[in-house]
Amino acid sequence: MLTELLAQFNVADKSGQNRLVYNAAWQANQQRLIQLGQEFGAKVTVDDYGSVYLDFPGSQPGLAVATGSHMDTVQHGGQYDGLYGVLGGLCAIEQLRQTYDRPRKTLRLIAFSEEEGSRFPAAFTGSKFYLGQPQTQPLLDDAGISFETARQQAVTPLQALPQVHTKRPALPATFTELHIEQGPRLKLAHKAIGLVTGIVAQRRYVVTVHGQANHAGTTPMIHRQDAVQRASALMTHLYDVAQQGSASLTFTIGAITVHPNVDNVIAGECRFTVDCRDETDAKLTQFTQQLDACVAADPQVTLTPTLTVSATRLSHALLRQNELLAQELGLPYEQLFSGAGHDSQIMYTAVPTTMLFVPSDNGVSHCPEEHTSAADLAKGVALLAASLYQQAY
Amino acid sequence: MLTELLAQFNVADKSGQNRLVYNAAWQANQQRLIQLGQEFGAKVTVDDYGSVYLDFPGSQPGLAVATGSHMDTVQHGGQYDGLYGVLGGLCAIEQLRQTYDRPRKTLRLIAFSEEEGSRFPAAFTGSKFYLGQPQTQPLLDDAGISFETARQQAVTPLQALPQVHTKRPALPATFTELHIEQGPRLKLAHKAIGLVTGIVAQRRYVVTVHGQANHAGTTPMIHRQDAVQRASALMTHLYDVAQQGSASLTFTIGAITVHPNVDNVIAGECRFTVDCRDETDAKLTQFTQQLDACVAADPQVTLTPTLTVSATRLSHALLRQNELLAQELGLPYEQLFSGAGHDSQIMYTAVPTTMLFVPSDNGVSHCPEEHTSAADLAKGVALLAASLYQQAY
Repeated sequence: MLTELLAQFNVADKSGQNRLVYNAAWQANQQRLIQLGQEFGAKVTVDDYGSVYLDFPGSQPGLAVATGSHMDTVQHGGQYDGLYGVLGGLCAIEQLRQTYDRPRKTLRLIAFSEEEGSRFPAAFTGSKFYLGQPQTQPLLDDAGISFETARQQAVTPLQALPQVHTKRPALPATFTELHIEQGPRLKLAHKAIGLVTGIVAQRRYVVTVHGQANHAGTTPMIHRQDAVQRASALMTHLYDVAQQGSASLTFTIGAITVHPNVDNVIAGECRFTVDCRDETDAKLTQFTQQLDACVAADPQVTLTPTLTVSATRLSHALLRQNELLAQELGLPYEQLFSGAGHDSQIMYTAVPTTMLFVPSDNGVSHCPEEHTSAADLAKGVALLAASLYQQAY
Repeated sequence: MLTELLAQFNVADKSGQNRLVYNAAWQANQQRLIQLGQEFGAKVTVDDYGSVYLDFPGSQPGLAVATGSHMDTVQHGGQYDGLYGVLGGLCAIEQLRQTYDRPRKTLRLIAFSEEEGSRFPAAFTGSKFYLGQPQTQPLLDDAGISFETARQQAVTPLQALPQVHTKRPALPATFTELHIEQGPRLKLAHKAIGLVTGIVAQRRYVVTVHGQANHAGTTPMIHRQDAVQRASALMTHLYDVAQQGSASLTFTIGAITVHPNVDNVIAGECRFTVDCRDETDAKLTQFTQQLDACVAADPQVTLTPTLTVSATRLSHALLRQNELLAQELGLPYEQLFSGAGHDSQIMYTAVPTTMLFVPSDNGVSHCPEEHTSAADLAKGVALLAASLYQQAY
């Protein structure tokens, strides 16, 4: 069933998936999920942010056991990031219901409205809203459309569908997020399952290197203040510092902007971004202190922090349960840290939360080439189903 | 007169001068020059490329003595580059005519249509056309307008003005180009005049560093092919190599383009430009051989040449005459090489040619801050007038 569902919810397009929150493709998919949930007999809720909750009621009262992920993608994204956790979760629940009928505890499948931060400059708005943290800053997308306008235009029709509830359900007893790894570790280690111990601390900066724009032919070398020359030396130094740091540190300069960026003009300014992550806040601070020191040493360089996210330790108890289940099912697994952010780091602030990873072919993600084999996808669903069974039946 | 003329031919705008060849501002200025020439009694010619020739006929037959420069500017250019040589040349001729009346040899003021290469990807099209070398490649500007279309729309109305000749005049006996230095040397040396011995050899390249785009958080450092990391190391190395090379070498990385250029994605490709110049082709080749070797050593890097210009030695005889005149006039001077390209390097291939530089305040050019004092401008005009007098009276 999962392969067919993925084909229905994805588009066949070389430019990949472009389900930015509240756009037409996003809206069509949330509607498709609502209809599917109703066909399966679920109680369907769409909250004011457009997150969809499919509740399969249990025979006993009490908090739900929840699974799910997000419906949105990055621009030119892949077929699995987010969507696998939604449709894989639905498949796991359906397998259990067909085999064991009604659960003891309510099973809840969640498709969060937004996680990627790829349309508006804010991420995790879906899971944060579920936790009672609405977006309060005015946000605009690249076309100048506000978050509020886009949200109302997309969510109102979904909430107006027949048999759709709109009151955000109570928080669940636990949350399990099934997701592709988005890195190469499981594939390289020949493991079927990643049991996620936590999610990295992350900090981002913009480094601005100042110079003096001038003519590339008429300005003698000794009279230059070449921003690219300074920036390339600094970038090289920072890569060296990062390489000598913590083994779990990642350090990336992903974007460079030069002004005026003309081949025969000495650069007056060169900006570059820094994205650094590590397993603990303390380890990451070790690196960022070195970054601060490098910059403080040069009056021609300024450092602007743009993002700070603390490390998250996910539920050890749930991880241990899943470890035993993986052993029972004969699924090779390893524990790993997530280098990417996930809804789970938001959910974990209020609910015992765990994540299950499946391998990503060639470790690539956030691009049309993102791929996981049907067999690998099925193993993740099998472990999730075992975990939901243990908790809800 | 020069200060008033410069004010008439320039716009008062913080974004600087934007007389890209064949645009409205360019066309208005060539028309203004034609009218001014006619008021001064010159025979006016506009050739098919829009270069304007003002001939002040001599009493004797024979080749003309010519001066001038180009009418176009770079985007956001200054008030002096090109235009000073046109209007300063006109002032020199008018001073001579008012003092000494009709010359023995014809004096010719030339305003070449285009030199900067800032609208279409070709430079020196005005002076090349004068030498019988029309532009044969189809060229488009950023708006998709062809060189041919732009040229005809701008030049036809100029050629249709009353009393305007359209037949390209014969080449002159000599050509002297008055120009701002565009660098800091004269100012630093407290010299009024630069006698230009030659124009640098110049080569430009695009260096493409290949990598593998991937997720900045989930890809372990040892599994990365980070194009920015490779490129910053290579750029730093090339700056080092350049610093250890010839004292007259200039080396500039002016533009960098990263793909996809997103802060949380490892770069899949990083391109940067190289602009290198030296006084002789042999000296420049010493550096470019090292550049070739650096690139050949790394299969992930490709090097694409985009421009090759040989060094030009200008007329030694004319320089020596101007040196003696500068001494007579009591103008402090020094000989120097031009690090920028000029129409003179084209003219010199067919006509004995020399250049006179005046100081550039703070050595800045190709920007609205470009400036030379009225006193410094006048000294250049004085030396040019002395040279034209010596040759034409």
